[in-house]
Amino acid sequence: MSVTAALGFLAGAIRAGIKESGDPDLALVVNRGPSRAAAGVFTSNRVQAAPVRWSRRVLADGRLTAVVLNSGGANACTGPGGADDTRLMAERTAWAVDTTLDEVAVCSTGLIGVRLPMEQVTAGITAVADVLSAEGGEDAAVAIKTTDSVHKTAVAARDGWTVGGMAKGAGMLAPGLATMLVVLTTDADVSADVLDSALREAVRTTFDRVDSDGCMSTNDTVLLLASGASGVTPGAAEFSAGVHAVCQDLARQLIADAEGASKEIEVAVVGAASEADAVEVGRSVARNNLLKCALHGEDPNWGRVLSAVGTTSAVFDPDRLDVAINGVRVCRDGAEGESRDKVDLSDRRINVTVDLRSGECSAVVWTNDLTAEYVHENSAYSS
Amino acid sequence: MSVTAALGFLAGAIRAGIKESGDPDLALVVNRGPSRAAAGVFTSNRVQAAPVRWSRRVLADGRLTAVVLNSGGANACTGPGGADDTRLMAERTAWAVDTTLDEVAVCSTGLIGVRLPMEQVTAGITAVADVLSAEGGEDAAVAIKTTDSVHKTAVAARDGWTVGGMAKGAGMLAPGLATMLVVLTTDADVSADVLDSALREAVRTTFDRVDSDGCMSTNDTVLLLASGASGVTPGAAEFSAGVHAVCQDLARQLIADAEGASKEIEVAVVGAASEADAVEVGRSVARNNLLKCALHGEDPNWGRVLSAVGTTSAVFDPDRLDVAINGVRVCRDGAEGESRDKVDLSDRRINVTVDLRSGECSAVVWTNDLTAEYVHENSAYSS
Repeated sequence: MSVTAALGFLAGAIRAGIKESGDPDLALVVNRGPSRAAAGVFTSNRVQAAPVRWSRRVLADGRLTAVVLNSGGANACTGPGGADDTRLMAERTAWAVDTTLDEVAVCSTGLIGVRLPMEQVTAGITAVADVLSAEGGEDAAVAIKTTDSVHKTAVAARDGWTVGGMAKGAGMLAPGLATMLVVLTTDADVSADVLDSALREAVRTTFDRVDSDGCMSTNDTVLLLASGASGVTPGAAEFSAGVHAVCQDLARQLIADAEGASKEIEVAVVGAASEADAVEVGRSVARNNLLKCALHGEDPNWGRVLSAVGTTSAVFDPDRLDVAINGVRVCRDGAEGESRDKVDLSDRRINVTVDLRSGECSAVVWTNDLTAEYVHENSAYSS
Repeated sequence: MSVTAALGFLAGAIRAGIKESGDPDLALVVNRGPSRAAAGVFTSNRVQAAPVRWSRRVLADGRLTAVVLNSGGANACTGPGGADDTRLMAERTAWAVDTTLDEVAVCSTGLIGVRLPMEQVTAGITAVADVLSAEGGEDAAVAIKTTDSVHKTAVAARDGWTVGGMAKGAGMLAPGLATMLVVLTTDADVSADVLDSALREAVRTTFDRVDSDGCMSTNDTVLLLASGASGVTPGAAEFSAGVHAVCQDLARQLIADAEGASKEIEVAVVGAASEADAVEVGRSVARNNLLKCALHGEDPNWGRVLSAVGTTSAVFDPDRLDVAINGVRVCRDGAEGESRDKVDLSDRRINVTVDLRSGECSAVVWTNDLTAEYVHENSAYSS
């Protein structure tokens, strides 16, 4: 059901001819209200695509009526011409769905550094507005795929209100496109401020903790639109929990579909003096190429975990570090613990737990293994 | 000629039986003086091997008579027992070459987390002291190899004095051993303070700018010993230049021998507001797995360069970034420049130049491509 699971939303998708493959490549999501409250978070990369710059600006007033999304081209690093292209996409969308320019967000994903084929894009926007429906959420989720092997949707149905969403991205591990786009919708009747805080909190502990290959995109965008069509205004905590559930579900789907990956790795850091320490250590371990290769080879190489922990500024004593892999405490007090022979790494899912023994805080970072297929998919053709 | 190119030094190596392969695995370097001045720099990883902790301590007074080195085991993350093993190695070496415990540095390289076979090590130390010679530098360089395909030595002969050295390490890209050991010797008559400043300055712009896979070792050690045997005291700048030349030579040999690599990549950052900015940008580009895959596939994917630059805190304007690959300015003003078809990436050596257009500072970071062979070598067996 995707973005149309919540009342008040229409969606649709078409083949506009942006992708050479002829696959669906243009999607439109429209909020029919009565509310138009919205919030968004964007890549923290300082090199930002034209649609990111645009969407950030139009979201300043906390209102959106429509989101137009294309795959087949990121419109990143395209200069002033690329900015004009994004504006034209918003203009044509506003005209097609009868709203104003500043209520349209734009998302693009694909190769960096090339201009979009605007003739196909603008004709496509006119065409997609004709196929909008309250059942169009799945089609929209399919049309934003790039190298994703499956489309990703999630829904949290609560007491009289719903949060739904779609995502694209094979982790950051997608072949060079490296873009995560997420559109969430809800029929709860909540203000832009509530949306904003719920979204930021949810993203902070879900999408921001996915670190498939350490490469940050120029185009990452997560949008949350509220129609208020359910007439229900849930409590802030309850609403946040619903948004978090959908984000968590989609984040796990991104890791599960990471291209070239054969393992889904959960790096849990416990006993940290602060959450920031736990995240720093988790990210360092998750980005360690040597460890990612070892886990690919089903080798419980805890020495590589310790060498990654040692590069951080977190509070810990090197002689009091513990590491468990799939529940076997292979490192105790910074030295050999239980036998590595006890560790079974044959499953696709792997847990690495690092105990810093310096406090009560914790965090989880999700990543993938590093495989020859990853190298192949990212070197065999330009993307 | 390696570490015995300079007057006053003896070296030797043997097969002690530490390595299962039966290859040479124990080396000894002895300074016969008259001076015993020395300096060292060590890994900044906070998880440090026992020999690193030991050598850092004995070097506090700026004097060394001998360095004992073993391959076949890193003696890292081995707890108090591992510290005892290092101390015993220093004791046996001191006895064998007639000096005191606190004038012996210890270097180890190999698998993290396992104890050394001390019976073989101690017997080996006694044996290697009997084969010391002024021609032993090459043998010593061979004995410290782990997965290095070639041994690495360099010599700078100057006006009446010489700096020589040996190194091991296939970049940080070696299969999990990930350790760089370097011993430099000189017959110049210079104080420990002069050695220290010359070594730190040279390391800062050579070994510290090698970033093959972003994985920092627990055992990295660079030592510089002066015998004073030439009787010549060069000027500080002249001496620094000699040390720098040998470090530069060895650093390039590390990158050239990085396992699994098919490309040597020089990331030059120019137009930076500060050297720190240039290094941060260079390192971010050098660590970007997507770019490293692209260059492996001979794809001049400048979008991946920009996305890596965008994750740094350096001073730059995203709309004024220029990128040249092998001399072709494929990105100008943050957008497409000259045609990527003009870029020839068939050579083993590749230059990526990023112009931040924000100042006069620059830096170079060396790295390698990311290949299926790297994944294979780091996943196929425990190391």
